[in-house]
Amino acid sequence: MTEYRPLKIALLGAGSVGSQVARLMIENKAELAARVGAELELIGIAVRDVNSPRNADIPKELLTTDAQSLILSADIVVELMGGLEPARNYILQALNSGSDVVTANKALLATHGPELFDTAEQVGAQLYFEAAVAGAIPIIRPLRESLAGDKVTRIMGIVNGTTNYILDQMDSTGATFDQALAEAQSLGYAEADPTADVEAYDAAQKAAILASLAFHTEVPLEKVYREGITKVTAEQIQAAQRDGYVIKLLAICERLADADGISVRVHPALIDRTHPLGAVRGAFNAVFVEAEAAGSLMFYGAGAGGVQTASAVLGDLVSAAKRHVAGGPGLADSVHANLEVLPIDVVNTRFQVTLEAKDEPGVLATIANVFSSRSVSIETVEQSVRVDKGVRSKTATLEIGTHAASNKALQDVVQTLSESDVVDSITSVIRVEGI
Amino acid sequence: MTEYRPLKIALLGAGSVGSQVARLMIENKAELAARVGAELELIGIAVRDVNSPRNADIPKELLTTDAQSLILSADIVVELMGGLEPARNYILQALNSGSDVVTANKALLATHGPELFDTAEQVGAQLYFEAAVAGAIPIIRPLRESLAGDKVTRIMGIVNGTTNYILDQMDSTGATFDQALAEAQSLGYAEADPTADVEAYDAAQKAAILASLAFHTEVPLEKVYREGITKVTAEQIQAAQRDGYVIKLLAICERLADADGISVRVHPALIDRTHPLGAVRGAFNAVFVEAEAAGSLMFYGAGAGGVQTASAVLGDLVSAAKRHVAGGPGLADSVHANLEVLPIDVVNTRFQVTLEAKDEPGVLATIANVFSSRSVSIETVEQSVRVDKGVRSKTATLEIGTHAASNKALQDVVQTLSESDVVDSITSVIRVEGI
Repeated sequence: MTEYRPLKIALLGAGSVGSQVARLMIENKAELAARVGAELELIGIAVRDVNSPRNADIPKELLTTDAQSLILSADIVVELMGGLEPARNYILQALNSGSDVVTANKALLATHGPELFDTAEQVGAQLYFEAAVAGAIPIIRPLRESLAGDKVTRIMGIVNGTTNYILDQMDSTGATFDQALAEAQSLGYAEADPTADVEAYDAAQKAAILASLAFHTEVPLEKVYREGITKVTAEQIQAAQRDGYVIKLLAICERLADADGISVRVHPALIDRTHPLGAVRGAFNAVFVEAEAAGSLMFYGAGAGGVQTASAVLGDLVSAAKRHVAGGPGLADSVHANLEVLPIDVVNTRFQVTLEAKDEPGVLATIANVFSSRSVSIETVEQSVRVDKGVRSKTATLEIGTHAASNKALQDVVQTLSESDVVDSITSVIRVEGI
Repeated sequence: MTEYRPLKIALLGAGSVGSQVARLMIENKAELAARVGAELELIGIAVRDVNSPRNADIPKELLTTDAQSLILSADIVVELMGGLEPARNYILQALNSGSDVVTANKALLATHGPELFDTAEQVGAQLYFEAAVAGAIPIIRPLRESLAGDKVTRIMGIVNGTTNYILDQMDSTGATFDQALAEAQSLGYAEADPTADVEAYDAAQKAAILASLAFHTEVPLEKVYREGITKVTAEQIQAAQRDGYVIKLLAICERLADADGISVRVHPALIDRTHPLGAVRGAFNAVFVEAEAAGSLMFYGAGAGGVQTASAVLGDLVSAAKRHVAGGPGLADSVHANLEVLPIDVVNTRFQVTLEAKDEPGVLATIANVFSSRSVSIETVEQSVRVDKGVRSKTATLEIGTHAASNKALQDVVQTLSESDVVDSITSVIRVEGI
């Protein structure tokens, strides 16, 4: 390695990830210099209030409230403050001053990604964001580079650790959603206001980023179909177990060859317990990728956590620094494919519908007719009647599995069934994925 | 993307991977051009005999026996011929003429890696080799880049699909090694001469490559401890099942902080069935990586196959081509850490020893003394005596699990036990990994 002047690194934000990045940069200074071929000098950490109590790993003398000056003095800017503003503005300033930027800000990328990437391309700077999706798991780089010569057909990801923890607890202990959420909160896996996680806003942002990389297409966040896990019942979890399934919150990015577009959606789904994603327990994340030539791949690891995410940030920082030393552009994404992001109504998936119906002759035929009249083909029917102290219940539970059907057709079926005299209640409607 | 002249790509070799690379380059020409910003023009395919029967995907007019001229005309050379020579010589010629090289040749890298990487660095060219380890699974790039700011502490990989298929068959059907091998051969998973796979030569080459990247250290192939799967018995597989383990051929690259060095080894080992590696079935591969900050990561997918490996080759080709368009060096590895590769004798692992001993008073104490005299600490003992038609056997089966012990101490124990009067036979000695 040739000698090179020290590179000036500015850190924006000193939260759980920022403090770990600062610590690792300081502790591993010599090692990082050996890997890059130049010293990485942490010149400052921009915060809102230098006097706030914070992690002891943060050297106080590096703190500043003057982010703008810090950005202008830096060779590489690492944005770990989160949120849309002023993060967006700071990143644009950094790019426009010629600095490469490393960020873990998924909300910003999912919302203003095109603007940021366009700016980077215009000025010849680079934007690295491995840490924005699935924490320490290298998934962005494989999609941007390793699979660059292949065609991704589908991504199914467990990309939110909080919801996977909650669903896994419900699965292994029989807890209700509320009980599992309370436990996740007490353990620090879920926030006091868990909305961003349990309503799948976080997963939807990650799905938008993954889909844009996989399909070389701009994916506006508002086109991502989103359904959280708050309505998943203990009964659904138990029924899934009986059938050899497990319920996961899946972020699915799919190329729909028939419809010449892509589907990007996040929702709870049944998946076979023997599927590699079915074995992802606790707060772990995993991203399952199917590509034409590569076949099935899976990337597994810790999806969150300050130090794990810091690992991904440092990997990007080393890449950016090597690029600085060696010159020449680094990664570049393009949106040349420009595929249509299709609405959920036209997306075909298998469904499982569970309902309580009158236990009378002809009821099954009536229900089957509702499905066939909407061209939804039934694959399996399981009927069970509860017998309590020798007395046979007057209602039967029907679990109906469909072949692939459009969301619109299925919703029509559900609506019609819910108005039918022979149906008492519809207790579960859930997609089946992973086939 | 700016306009750029077409890049001239030379392919060396037209076997199962080469023919798929040629096919994908031709079929996806427009898509690849959009991703790279320049057309990728396949200018020729070097083979030994242009008239040999070969895959219909190979355009005959591109075949040539004049590899040297082809190399000199190319911007990027893709070496997929395998073997040490002339592959080594061709790659050196390509690098010295300023071309970047993409290769899937693990044997060559494990044997002559340092020479090739030194040459590449001297001339400012790049050598890409994602396809050399674990087929389509992106593992090289994550190690070279994503984890560049982290410290890898251990890698455990299932990196040979043939042996994983054989062990998985033995596990799921109760087959012997010979039966499972015969089936693997009939299905095309194993070659007529299976030595390279079942004696773990192939896995050892991959272990050397992984360890050199993970620990920034030259790892000569002869320092990789290697033990194949030919001696794994159906009884060992069944005993593993009873204990909640599964037997896998693991390639292990480990930083030994105590001894200030690394261990690189390939051998069969017991691993917990609930470990992510325990669930890797059939001919699939997976690489489990532990790093200080990132924690545990796993990369899973098809480890071999022409089209899957071609996906990895194309990913590298796109990287090399983008670098050509944009200028500037790409990846660079260094061996700055220069750690010692320690011999197996000083490596501490847990062991499980199974033996037949006389079923007499005092025998267990005698055996326990042998372990303790070599400072090998026993963690568990299970004793069972076979009773056949009401007659109790005169020998007992002892299954002894140890705490971590050095290979040398354990071998001493086994040697002493084998000479002991109270021991009839030692039926199994196997390492336990993944703790």
